[in-house]
Amino acid sequence: MINLYELARYLEAHDNYEILTHAYPDGDTLGSGFALCLALQQIGKNARVITTNVPSKFTYLLNGVKEQDFEAEVIISTDVAADTLLGSNMEKYIGRIDMCIDHHGSNTITAKEKFVDRFAAANCEIIYKLFQRMNIKITEQIADCLYTGISTDTGCFRYTNTTSETMRVAAQLMDFGCNTGYINKVMFETKSKTKIQIEQAVYDTMTYCANGRCAIIYTTLDMFKSLDVGDDEMEGLASIPRQIEGVLMGITMREKESGFFKISVRTNDGINASEFCSQFGGGGHPAAAGCAIEGTLDEVRNKLIEAAEKVLK
Amino acid sequence: MINLYELARYLEAHDNYEILTHAYPDGDTLGSGFALCLALQQIGKNARVITTNVPSKFTYLLNGVKEQDFEAEVIISTDVAADTLLGSNMEKYIGRIDMCIDHHGSNTITAKEKFVDRFAAANCEIIYKLFQRMNIKITEQIADCLYTGISTDTGCFRYTNTTSETMRVAAQLMDFGCNTGYINKVMFETKSKTKIQIEQAVYDTMTYCANGRCAIIYTTLDMFKSLDVGDDEMEGLASIPRQIEGVLMGITMREKESGFFKISVRTNDGINASEFCSQFGGGGHPAAAGCAIEGTLDEVRNKLIEAAEKVLK
Repeated sequence: MINLYELARYLEAHDNYEILTHAYPDGDTLGSGFALCLALQQIGKNARVITTNVPSKFTYLLNGVKEQDFEAEVIISTDVAADTLLGSNMEKYIGRIDMCIDHHGSNTITAKEKFVDRFAAANCEIIYKLFQRMNIKITEQIADCLYTGISTDTGCFRYTNTTSETMRVAAQLMDFGCNTGYINKVMFETKSKTKIQIEQAVYDTMTYCANGRCAIIYTTLDMFKSLDVGDDEMEGLASIPRQIEGVLMGITMREKESGFFKISVRTNDGINASEFCSQFGGGGHPAAAGCAIEGTLDEVRNKLIEAAEKVLK
Repeated sequence: MINLYELARYLEAHDNYEILTHAYPDGDTLGSGFALCLALQQIGKNARVITTNVPSKFTYLLNGVKEQDFEAEVIISTDVAADTLLGSNMEKYIGRIDMCIDHHGSNTITAKEKFVDRFAAANCEIIYKLFQRMNIKITEQIADCLYTGISTDTGCFRYTNTTSETMRVAAQLMDFGCNTGYINKVMFETKSKTKIQIEQAVYDTMTYCANGRCAIIYTTLDMFKSLDVGDDEMEGLASIPRQIEGVLMGITMREKESGFFKISVRTNDGINASEFCSQFGGGGHPAAAGCAIEGTLDEVRNKLIEAAEKVLK
């Protein structure tokens, strides 16, 4: 593990950078990658970002990024916690990463050197502090990239990972002219028509048990087919049941194949989600865990209801 | 208009305070009121907050507030933009307010003296700065009150009224130990079971027109009756249709009496909501306006569709 000062000197000392982001890219990995790319180009380096894809709502992050033709010398990963998370880029880059910059305490990626700060709410918070040590001018574009990462990884400063330091970095980015109005609107105030339809369909599946302390929702293959949506539209659904007043355990069942369900469990008030899932061969964190159960919709739901009523009795 | 320094000296110079909040109280008026009460009690004054009511999710704001028996000498209003907003307390207090502290540029309340800062995202932002000029120790309770006001008036730092200054004040409140985890959970991550049912019912009413650039939802008296809910549960509904991808004008119709609808219009991208509503005798702000229309559900909706298609053609 190197420190932030050493990381700054390292980036100044080399020239031709490829920056890796994680598969199913989110605002933090893309914001980190493109901010770093813009900063390196600003101080006369060659740099490019390698992504599996850039979802359309994130295309503004590419503003101002120059396409440069060069042979990569240094491979950097940003916000990538493990080799497998490189997705389709894994085969090409595994074992070749020179420097990892990440905020996941669980980081296991194969890299020659690492800077990992698990107290940073977002990887973009680290990147901002890095730039302070490199005399990077925070342009509007760089500020947009960093604010995107920080706001998306904290649910717009709502999640418990948000620290006073996170707020102060965001304040500085606002002073540097980042377009919070646009970014917040796109990230937090926009739902696709399909998403509305899915939510509507999912609300119809809501079952309460354990005297309202457990809520269960589900999606089925038939629902996907009739709404003509992919699995990626399911993002965020798992948080719905836990948000309901009085619910201590929110369960989301997703039919992945006929007779096979993936289960997400989210809990409040110290109910152990990981322990709950372990009885079905799964696991995870205390407040967010998962497992897989075979059976028909009713069979699986009944198993979950029975188990939930035992825990919440 | 006095300045913040003068306001601080004024509060130090007097003794027995009654603090008024606005009717249908929100996090900002209650947070301002109870923070001010705690601070005045801290420096040896008598103080109490006058409210029409305190919704149950806000009862934690009363932590640490002492009940004191005294004759009021000075009447202060916090976050009350106009006399009528005092609600059931108007009759008793109208014309008797000594000092108004507010962040609404439109403030018209009758008061002997005023401090109004329309650039403050929340009235609690003003109160924090006031306390800095009064040597108030920011306790955990005071920090909770102020954070509640700031986070609720900015949609947890999502709305465009949020400034870098807002973020910095929030950062300081976090350093003073405010319980952001609890507050954010209650304010932004909790929905009542009834609210879920209302959303579900309202989603079922969604109509698109103008090639998907306008979305209309409605509530009817029958819906209220069958769900057994009051009008107050409707809070936040008006923001639903505008959030849909591609929608420039989101319209919410609320049946108030049989054959009489109140209409809320929210717009994106410069579409003028106030102008739109003025053709029905209403008005408001460029992006948020309202009006009232008489007729059956279908008649009113058809009028709105016709008008929307004209504007969005």
